[in-house]
Amino acid sequence: PWRIPYHHQGLLHYCREFGVQLEPFIELNHNSWLHSTGAFGGKAVRYRELASDFNGFTAELLAKAIDQHKLDELVPEEERAHIREAMKSWGALNTDMAYAKGNTSSLRRGFEKSQGGGVDGAPVPSDLFARKDVMQSGLWNWMAFHERLDMQTTMFQPVGGMDQIGKGFTRQVKDLITLNCKVSSIHQDDRGVTVTYTDTAHGDAVRQAQADYCVCTIPLSVLSQLDVQVNAGMKAAIAAVPYASSVKMGMEFKRRFWEEDDQIYGGISFTDQQISQISYPSNGIFSKGPAVLLGGYMFGPAAYDFAGMTPEERIQRALDQGTAIHPQYRKEFSNGVSFAWSRVPWTLGCCSMWTEEARKTHYKTLCAVDNRLVLAGEHASYVGCWQEGAILSALDAVTRLHKRALGAA
Amino acid sequence: PWRIPYHHQGLLHYCREFGVQLEPFIELNHNSWLHSTGAFGGKAVRYRELASDFNGFTAELLAKAIDQHKLDELVPEEERAHIREAMKSWGALNTDMAYAKGNTSSLRRGFEKSQGGGVDGAPVPSDLFARKDVMQSGLWNWMAFHERLDMQTTMFQPVGGMDQIGKGFTRQVKDLITLNCKVSSIHQDDRGVTVTYTDTAHGDAVRQAQADYCVCTIPLSVLSQLDVQVNAGMKAAIAAVPYASSVKMGMEFKRRFWEEDDQIYGGISFTDQQISQISYPSNGIFSKGPAVLLGGYMFGPAAYDFAGMTPEERIQRALDQGTAIHPQYRKEFSNGVSFAWSRVPWTLGCCSMWTEEARKTHYKTLCAVDNRLVLAGEHASYVGCWQEGAILSALDAVTRLHKRALGAA
Repeated sequence: PWRIPYHHQGLLHYCREFGVQLEPFIELNHNSWLHSTGAFGGKAVRYRELASDFNGFTAELLAKAIDQHKLDELVPEEERAHIREAMKSWGALNTDMAYAKGNTSSLRRGFEKSQGGGVDGAPVPSDLFARKDVMQSGLWNWMAFHERLDMQTTMFQPVGGMDQIGKGFTRQVKDLITLNCKVSSIHQDDRGVTVTYTDTAHGDAVRQAQADYCVCTIPLSVLSQLDVQVNAGMKAAIAAVPYASSVKMGMEFKRRFWEEDDQIYGGISFTDQQISQISYPSNGIFSKGPAVLLGGYMFGPAAYDFAGMTPEERIQRALDQGTAIHPQYRKEFSNGVSFAWSRVPWTLGCCSMWTEEARKTHYKTLCAVDNRLVLAGEHASYVGCWQEGAILSALDAVTRLHKRALGAA
Repeated sequence: PWRIPYHHQGLLHYCREFGVQLEPFIELNHNSWLHSTGAFGGKAVRYRELASDFNGFTAELLAKAIDQHKLDELVPEEERAHIREAMKSWGALNTDMAYAKGNTSSLRRGFEKSQGGGVDGAPVPSDLFARKDVMQSGLWNWMAFHERLDMQTTMFQPVGGMDQIGKGFTRQVKDLITLNCKVSSIHQDDRGVTVTYTDTAHGDAVRQAQADYCVCTIPLSVLSQLDVQVNAGMKAAIAAVPYASSVKMGMEFKRRFWEEDDQIYGGISFTDQQISQISYPSNGIFSKGPAVLLGGYMFGPAAYDFAGMTPEERIQRALDQGTAIHPQYRKEFSNGVSFAWSRVPWTLGCCSMWTEEARKTHYKTLCAVDNRLVLAGEHASYVGCWQEGAILSALDAVTRLHKRALGAA
């Protein structure tokens, strides 16, 4: 299963109406690992350690700048006390307005020896990282990541896997769907639309489907290679949007060592290696026996690199890189699968990557109804790469097409 | 159900071993409300709006201080570029290093008009709050709250309610427990311990139980009022720890308006009113029909105030205050219950509130084995107010008592 943001109200609505059960997806995990080959000697650090120190040092610096009257020109006097107070609270500064080793900072970043019970229960504070190492690490990018509107809590996943959503939709419109049809051309005139396709489920027979109107949801990466009868503007728009390459790895391990050894329950560890992240299952937490994690989620050059490997090579590479975060990786590994969207014939990529420039020139044209044809999909939305974009795009497309049809009737 | 932090490994261990099923508890919710009667004209703001603006303005100020060479004495030259880059990424600053209205800030705080699909899908950025209002609001205290070690993700709750944990333990030691015994004295000599109690399940008969040793888990708020035969140091320790008063409100509403109207799924809205917070259920999300939320969680003066009210008065007060955050509150309300720990005869308070001073003087003495008696409970731990403290304390107490018994044998 993977993630659905709380504000994807179109998708969430259909899940609720179609009986697709959802459960929380854990996105942010303070106990997950952040890893950069160039930071902290290549050793992974806990999210809570990095975030606490980043906040603390940032707050300390700003409070000092205020106290030393360095910001008097920028900050009116009545605001200074508020900022000072805010920095102390938010940054876990001590009574001297310093971010320093002690209980105050350890109650954020974690103790060297945890708070315990009984006669020897007193905790021992942990050492801080050096400020320059924190600031140089680049790992604060992952703090920013979790603040992105698309990545904020609360996040959901469909119980049983993302395909439950497709199955939910299928239950509603089963009788309207014909599978295994490879479209080769879409022609239209004033009376209707004709789609020519190869019926790959029946000996590659070439067939035609005719209708008054057509809502076409074929990804632009494929559509741009077909014989599609649209005006020149839309043709240019269809050709104007590059598609992202992406690869995901599903890897099964004999036990949940990330839970049992590292106390990581769901969430994501990040790395600057190609695999980019390891995402732990949000379901079945605390269960015994084997479990599957997301062992890599590649975009950009790393995705092209992985897409060019054999499945076995991908697994080996992911195991190598994952070992930098989890030394148990190879020992506990059971088996794995990978999926490279760029090699899937009916998508030829993961999703549309609009540039701002291309949007300005082509977006409205791409979305417009061209005679009897309208396009829909995440590519015809501002919620690119998400199912929500496809749903909002489709709702808009059919609404406009319906109006057009009524007007023409 | 309520929360269990990921690092409470003692409690989580027993849950796993005793078959107490756990599910994620959503603590941080970017879409929940933050409310202060003295900030933003008394209007609640979304967590994401406040947090984005706080981070953005903080980053902007620190970046400016760096750029204007105000911090050259505090920050070596090679570090300045890293801090600048960090502030830009973490704070969502634009290319001018400003935190300003636009897509960059709205991709954190949310848009005025969301990113949509189809021809009119372009989003409209939202206005920022004024920096001085953000800094004056005090609402950043709730950002700090979620960074506390005890409040970090991943958090859990027992499926079916917190009492499932008690039931899980009971299944293991059922034959050893006698309920409804009100202890009045604990005496000991060199041969054993005698506990006198009133058997309230059998006509208030006064009985005695005798044993070689005693592990006493009676809260200090009660124990300090009993006839307990311990040395003077332990007696002083037992009397030295005040107990927090606390009140919780469980309130049922006819529908999940916080989900349906506000898109809040689990998590907590905070307010500076007495109720302090409204916590939304992490289970049953998206279900139709009535649901229960935590309508108030009071400590300190507010807890004493609520504890002194009738149950009906508490409900009315909680409805009044909750309406400031959710205007639908009264209309959707069905019924509610409240629980004031200070009025529960067998706890007389919520949990121990050690001061640092009292810890220094009394903690080790409180935890020590006194002849044949040892105390256990969250009060004999550094994990006060949590079940984990009671478990760690008990493990330590019985381990030491066992050693003592072996030595004495």
